Amino acid sequence: MSSSPFTLHRRSTKSAARRGEVSTLHGVIQTPVFMPVGTQATVKAVTPEDLKDIGAQIILANTYHLYIRPGHELIQELGGLHKFMNWERPILTDSGGFQIYSLKDLAKITEEGAAFKSHLDGSSLFLSPEDAVEVQEALGTDIMMCLDTCIPYPADREETIAATELTGRWARRSRGAQKDTGQLLFGIVQGGMHLDLRKQAAEELIDIGFDGYALGGLSVGEPNELMYDITEQTATLLPQDYPIYLMGVGTPEDLVESVYRGVDMFDCVMPTRNARNGMLFTSEGRVVIKNAQYQKDSRPVDETCDCYTCRNYSRAYLRHLYMAREILSSHLNTVHNLHYFVNLMKEIRTAIEEDRFEVFRQDFYSKREKSEIS
Amino acid sequence: MSSSPFTLHRRSTKSAARRGEVSTLHGVIQTPVFMPVGTQATVKAVTPEDLKDIGAQIILANTYHLYIRPGHELIQELGGLHKFMNWERPILTDSGGFQIYSLKDLAKITEEGAAFKSHLDGSSLFLSPEDAVEVQEALGTDIMMCLDTCIPYPADREETIAATELTGRWARRSRGAQKDTGQLLFGIVQGGMHLDLRKQAAEELIDIGFDGYALGGLSVGEPNELMYDITEQTATLLPQDYPIYLMGVGTPEDLVESVYRGVDMFDCVMPTRNARNGMLFTSEGRVVIKNAQYQKDSRPVDETCDCYTCRNYSRAYLRHLYMAREILSSHLNTVHNLHYFVNLMKEIRTAIEEDRFEVFRQDFYSKREKSEIS
Repeated sequence: MSSSPFTLHRRSTKSAARRGEVSTLHGVIQTPVFMPVGTQATVKAVTPEDLKDIGAQIILANTYHLYIRPGHELIQELGGLHKFMNWERPILTDSGGFQIYSLKDLAKITEEGAAFKSHLDGSSLFLSPEDAVEVQEALGTDIMMCLDTCIPYPADREETIAATELTGRWARRSRGAQKDTGQLLFGIVQGGMHLDLRKQAAEELIDIGFDGYALGGLSVGEPNELMYDITEQTATLLPQDYPIYLMGVGTPEDLVESVYRGVDMFDCVMPTRNARNGMLFTSEGRVVIKNAQYQKDSRPVDETCDCYTCRNYSRAYLRHLYMAREILSSHLNTVHNLHYFVNLMKEIRTAIEEDRFEVFRQDFYSKREKSEIS
Repeated sequence: MSSSPFTLHRRSTKSAARRGEVSTLHGVIQTPVFMPVGTQATVKAVTPEDLKDIGAQIILANTYHLYIRPGHELIQELGGLHKFMNWERPILTDSGGFQIYSLKDLAKITEEGAAFKSHLDGSSLFLSPEDAVEVQEALGTDIMMCLDTCIPYPADREETIAATELTGRWARRSRGAQKDTGQLLFGIVQGGMHLDLRKQAAEELIDIGFDGYALGGLSVGEPNELMYDITEQTATLLPQDYPIYLMGVGTPEDLVESVYRGVDMFDCVMPTRNARNGMLFTSEGRVVIKNAQYQKDSRPVDETCDCYTCRNYSRAYLRHLYMAREILSSHLNTVHNLHYFVNLMKEIRTAIEEDRFEVFRQDFYSKREKSEIS
């Protein structure tokens, strides 16, 4: 086992919030961090240069999608995922467990792995935990995720135990299959909404030993308070000298609440997907750009924002682009939303450094309450 | 009447090709020039910064589209089209004649103007030649076009005479309606495929006196040789101390051939539209990026091209993005194609300056003949 890639810089004196960094093959990531999602080897509607301008430190790509198209061998042949997509900063690849889970009837999970039909052409495919590591090694990503089995919400205890234990056995096989490439491998804690099963899952992963620990199976439909509670309780069970990653989460509020509970890393399609649907995040809440109230509005989306979109375009223009279904609408909205998420994490990092994160958290909510926007 | 905005720098000794410049409110345009099309106040899939990086000197927007959505009053209220779309270089607005013509049964042309139904919501609208000038003045564009009536191909002589003469009367009304804003107004020579009618139309426009002269009603389905012939013959009828603009044309070959015949300005949706359809222009011909032959091709689209796309991405990646229907596909392809068109015109300008345009023209064709691409 390698030593931890995580270095703790500062721990909040009043919450579990922490400021640290994660060292990877392609550089060091300052945490807490938000990772924009680039499922198919592109963060939708923006270039790598846009991402760098925005300040993105690391992006996420998807093992399942790239395995199916264009194929990991092809990407490896062309020099790896970084070169393929022209992104030299760190990349984390999700294992594909969630995507296979989403296929429902098209997938069959056995002890050996996941048999599934391609969502593109229906062809029969198989991915074992070992395969998932091999694919991610071929892609050459910096942080690999173990293949896991997801649990629906709600789920009965029997079902949850079976999936959680299988995820544990797959995690051990994943770690065993790993070659000495310097790539990091994170385990995923399942356990549904049962704290005792989360504890059992965490202990199993700690026994195996990973470079980081992820919380899976959250933000799957459960109430926010339950998610926050499971996150808080599970985070305390994990080794505090390793990075903690909450998968697929979430809203700006979720990020603030989860940092407060000790999480270091996040990813979510929300900023990019909502951007394409015309929903913009601001410090005062959410702007639905198609609304008639913005028709002649000469102000930027967020007057306190210094992103490319807010520096150069009015709400009226963004509304026009959205109504006219112009591609530039998706681009400008994505730039703004990603900037909002990335900048929020930057402000969070500074607040933790200055040990005033809890005040930051209060201000974060009071700005929203005073606003007319949301 | 104002003096000509055109300054001639150099005339080819062996053809009608010429190197000049056009002065506008937002700067000077070096000619021959290609104008990217930004119909709805955005050149599809690229930002103004991308356009500047590519070297675009002037873009085209559409009076008909902006009149319908978001409306010229709204754009005027927000400070004009340049500010609205964040583009400080010159803008030419097409008058909308071609779009109204394309509505076919939804439009009715009378002496007074064009009655038509909005392609968006079917509402009844009316645009007179005077209205078209007023709309373009409200938009604040640099070069305005007179409202014209288009002629199908083929068309009988009677129909062609009627439309051409009406375009002439509308041109006189347009010039008369113009306020003293410093904006340029170009007349449009119709006349179909009849040289005597083209001559009559040109004489009528010259009698009125415009800041530039456009050739309309070409590239509407006629054989290339006929288009080149009409272009050549009509260009010689126009005042040589004014800019000559061939509307809606065309392929790289069309640009080379029309510069050879004395044209200064061009616009066409081809580079942007074809980009979104995965068709890329190169010095050796056309690349259809979805073709299987590019699946593992690590080379850039055009090895002689220094655009952002060719500097950073392989054909294999561009093919992947296209197959995955990613927005970045449209963006990267558009950047490349516009760079190809803009750079072609730059090479043409240099060749004319050095009085070797005819050699350039031969090389242009021989590169294509030797290629395996097209």
